[in-house]
Amino acid sequence: MDLNPNNLIGYGESRGSGKTLQGVNPAGGQVLPGEFYLATTDDVEQAMTLATRAFAEYKLLPNEQRAAFLDAIAQEIEALGDALVQRASAETGLPESRIIGERGRTTGQLRMFADYIRAGHYVEASIDTAIPERQPIPKPDLRKMMVPLGPVVVFGSSNFPLAYSVAGGDTASALAAGCPVLVKAHPGHPGTSALVGQAIVRAARTTGMPEGVFSLLYDSGFQIGQALVGHPAARAVGFTGSLAGGRALFDLAAQREVPIPVFAEMGSINPSVLLPQTLAQRAAEIARIYAGSITLGVGQFCTNPGLILAIKGEAFDNFIAILSEEISKALPATMLHSGISAAFRQKTREMAEQLGVTFVARAAEEGQEYEGRPMVAKAPAQTFISNPRLHEEVFGPFSLLIECADQAELEACVAVLKGQLTVTIRGEEEEFGQYRDLINQLRDKAGRVIFNGVPTGVEVCPSMTHGGPYPATTDSRFTAVGVHAIKRFLRPVTFQNAPPAILPEALQDDNPLHIWRLINGELSRDPIK
Amino acid sequence: MDLNPNNLIGYGESRGSGKTLQGVNPAGGQVLPGEFYLATTDDVEQAMTLATRAFAEYKLLPNEQRAAFLDAIAQEIEALGDALVQRASAETGLPESRIIGERGRTTGQLRMFADYIRAGHYVEASIDTAIPERQPIPKPDLRKMMVPLGPVVVFGSSNFPLAYSVAGGDTASALAAGCPVLVKAHPGHPGTSALVGQAIVRAARTTGMPEGVFSLLYDSGFQIGQALVGHPAARAVGFTGSLAGGRALFDLAAQREVPIPVFAEMGSINPSVLLPQTLAQRAAEIARIYAGSITLGVGQFCTNPGLILAIKGEAFDNFIAILSEEISKALPATMLHSGISAAFRQKTREMAEQLGVTFVARAAEEGQEYEGRPMVAKAPAQTFISNPRLHEEVFGPFSLLIECADQAELEACVAVLKGQLTVTIRGEEEEFGQYRDLINQLRDKAGRVIFNGVPTGVEVCPSMTHGGPYPATTDSRFTAVGVHAIKRFLRPVTFQNAPPAILPEALQDDNPLHIWRLINGELSRDPIK
Repeated sequence: MDLNPNNLIGYGESRGSGKTLQGVNPAGGQVLPGEFYLATTDDVEQAMTLATRAFAEYKLLPNEQRAAFLDAIAQEIEALGDALVQRASAETGLPESRIIGERGRTTGQLRMFADYIRAGHYVEASIDTAIPERQPIPKPDLRKMMVPLGPVVVFGSSNFPLAYSVAGGDTASALAAGCPVLVKAHPGHPGTSALVGQAIVRAARTTGMPEGVFSLLYDSGFQIGQALVGHPAARAVGFTGSLAGGRALFDLAAQREVPIPVFAEMGSINPSVLLPQTLAQRAAEIARIYAGSITLGVGQFCTNPGLILAIKGEAFDNFIAILSEEISKALPATMLHSGISAAFRQKTREMAEQLGVTFVARAAEEGQEYEGRPMVAKAPAQTFISNPRLHEEVFGPFSLLIECADQAELEACVAVLKGQLTVTIRGEEEEFGQYRDLINQLRDKAGRVIFNGVPTGVEVCPSMTHGGPYPATTDSRFTAVGVHAIKRFLRPVTFQNAPPAILPEALQDDNPLHIWRLINGELSRDPIK
Repeated sequence: MDLNPNNLIGYGESRGSGKTLQGVNPAGGQVLPGEFYLATTDDVEQAMTLATRAFAEYKLLPNEQRAAFLDAIAQEIEALGDALVQRASAETGLPESRIIGERGRTTGQLRMFADYIRAGHYVEASIDTAIPERQPIPKPDLRKMMVPLGPVVVFGSSNFPLAYSVAGGDTASALAAGCPVLVKAHPGHPGTSALVGQAIVRAARTTGMPEGVFSLLYDSGFQIGQALVGHPAARAVGFTGSLAGGRALFDLAAQREVPIPVFAEMGSINPSVLLPQTLAQRAAEIARIYAGSITLGVGQFCTNPGLILAIKGEAFDNFIAILSEEISKALPATMLHSGISAAFRQKTREMAEQLGVTFVARAAEEGQEYEGRPMVAKAPAQTFISNPRLHEEVFGPFSLLIECADQAELEACVAVLKGQLTVTIRGEEEEFGQYRDLINQLRDKAGRVIFNGVPTGVEVCPSMTHGGPYPATTDSRFTAVGVHAIKRFLRPVTFQNAPPAILPEALQDDNPLHIWRLINGELSRDPIK
């Protein structure tokens, strides 16, 4: 498969600065074929100019045409076949089976957004009809719908090289909304990015999209990302990654002369609360499930369970013993890139240095430097409450177990939790009643409350919330997964007394799109007579 | 009517610093009765502690109980009778008839939000049912709904002493959402604020709301506002006022350790484009309508038409002549407070000093220092395009007329416009087709596109968008007027595999609230079998 080494600027290409970056196999550090040119701020300028021009046309395309573009991207990605799977696996250390699964999720998301905009309801049309005879002043005709914000900057994420990278959820939802997308490729998987970027460009060409609807730029540092987010033509930002990275982009966007919204999903420690009765009854079963969840994908999921809280006692001791046994049997495995494995080593080392923290298990095998070695530690509730360092995410196969004296101390721990993507509570049906306050307290901390499950595994469906209060994300009012992720890139606009010939189809009297609309405050699919 | 001079901290009161501020009648500067105590940061701390505690209870109240609270506020405001009307008129210089109208809008909004949450659909419930047998992994049961963010800080606005002040749209929508509200009273109308604040406290008591669901604090400077927005327990901010004020709050909120959303509505110059044919046919009629809109409420509406664009020629000259005649006949009138009248004088003086700007009419009467003297100026398109000072809002009865050479120059002017609350286009039906690109261009600049109307007059209904790209607001994805203003203060939360006994009513199988829900992606009011 031909690896295009150039920045993709609309339908053109650029060798940017002439300098390059290369993909590296994290398992051993072997440099992979292909030298990808680092973009310049001139490339950003050019890509933004094209995106702005494209927006004027793209925003007005019928939903069907944008849907066909998204479907074509999915097809083109599938057409990349094994070459994409092998390259993505080589660049990330993720097994091919995982990449194949993720490819399915990625193409599934693209088709999901295609179907969603085809259905057309997403514009949230609302019509209030005129009352010309109203006193003291006539009521005008008002018709509202959601419209796209404009060019969106997307940062490829390292831990989902397909599903949250070049053609991932942010790109799919922004394109579906009617926004051109400019992707800053993640330097951890440039070859994967190149393959997918070319697939998008092919899809854009074959479906007749305006030039500039998509651009892809490479950088090994921060300059290009900053130039994209700081560019006056940028209208929103999508990011999945670290708290430091997300916050830096949020700050940059907030300091612009014209601030723009940033949806940064910055991970989480995904606390789990294990209630006493269920621990007493199923400690072994739950311990094995958690061992699986903690080590899944070498712990490199935003929803990795990084914190487990329970009331001290025999049942929790039993749980810790079985979890420890499972963790010691787990195998170290290759992490996404050397920066991530180094950070994991350092963060776990720092965790071990915190007063009151005791490591209770490590994988028996030490593993290679580039591998993540599963481990768990424990600490008393008061230590957790008083030391904010214990609230920080350790990205990788690690979890911290907190021993609470009683229900009150459990609630005190929950009270100091920061915002989370998920919180999990495990209990027997009959004991939830006693912990109702705790459940209501947990609800305020997260975007998703899981009962008797594990946080890993994010179903892509309308009822999913992958989001949550800061620092889980920079805007808890939106989700990054599922069809409603499109809302991040839309805003309402109202047409007042617009002539019928001017009205978009979604707002026309006869409802040619057959969509649900709010007519004088009531949902209806009927035409207006 | 008894004027309570104290800060209202939950159900308690505080004399804060012991220092006071007083209401002033802007027409002449007469000091009005009542000395209102300036709050301290201790008062902020106390109000936030109570609000946080109240939130735990208030967020879980049935919609009916929150609705009853909102209805009771409306009733209590009405029960204030003439005392409120007289005080608000005296403090703002707005005529009593206007205050009576605004009171109707205020109580109307409160009841509108009460009805809206009673109907219950606003939680946007979405349910994806489980597929336990799905391969390779079972699909969990996922149920999503909108939940309140937490304590909201509201800044009373000076230009709507009732409808966007203590019990205005921000307060009503936040309380409806389930968020406690802390209002920083506008120092321009402390007596009005005290009356309305007490009305809210009475309503909260009689409907059994938890203490802290509402607090009201006075300040003559920035300290209390900053303390409120900077407080860790604050979860969102609502503001209507100047660009400088709104931006300062936005910056403060963005710089917090945990950033919070700010919805600041910061006004606009509300451009109007007058197309040639309609100008040729109806110059006089349109000029008279604009004279009325420019001077309405002494130009102190966020939607005041501050910019009028048209193609140069006889028809526009004719329009300018008639508008000038109308403006010269208009009467200066009292502005909201001395700060606003002084700013109006200064901004119009600065406008007059801009190269290429010509004043074409002023009200014949000079008026008092505290009055706004209606005036209009004109400038060529190239002057407008090259001088950003001409794009800034002049709050008051002023409008700038821009003469364009042709359609291309008209489009060039529109291209450089900043974000607006509204844009207006006036034309004959048959000429809109020729300006389709211009209309599509205008759509990107504003929250509302008005055809053959004037921007003043904001209908309160579901299809209204009172919002728009920055600097009209700090978040174009929301509206500040109409039922959907509630969305600013809500976020989604998903319950995964929750036991039926734990699920909120909105998400229960049998749909006891009879609300519209998305069931496996399809809207339905049916129960789940």
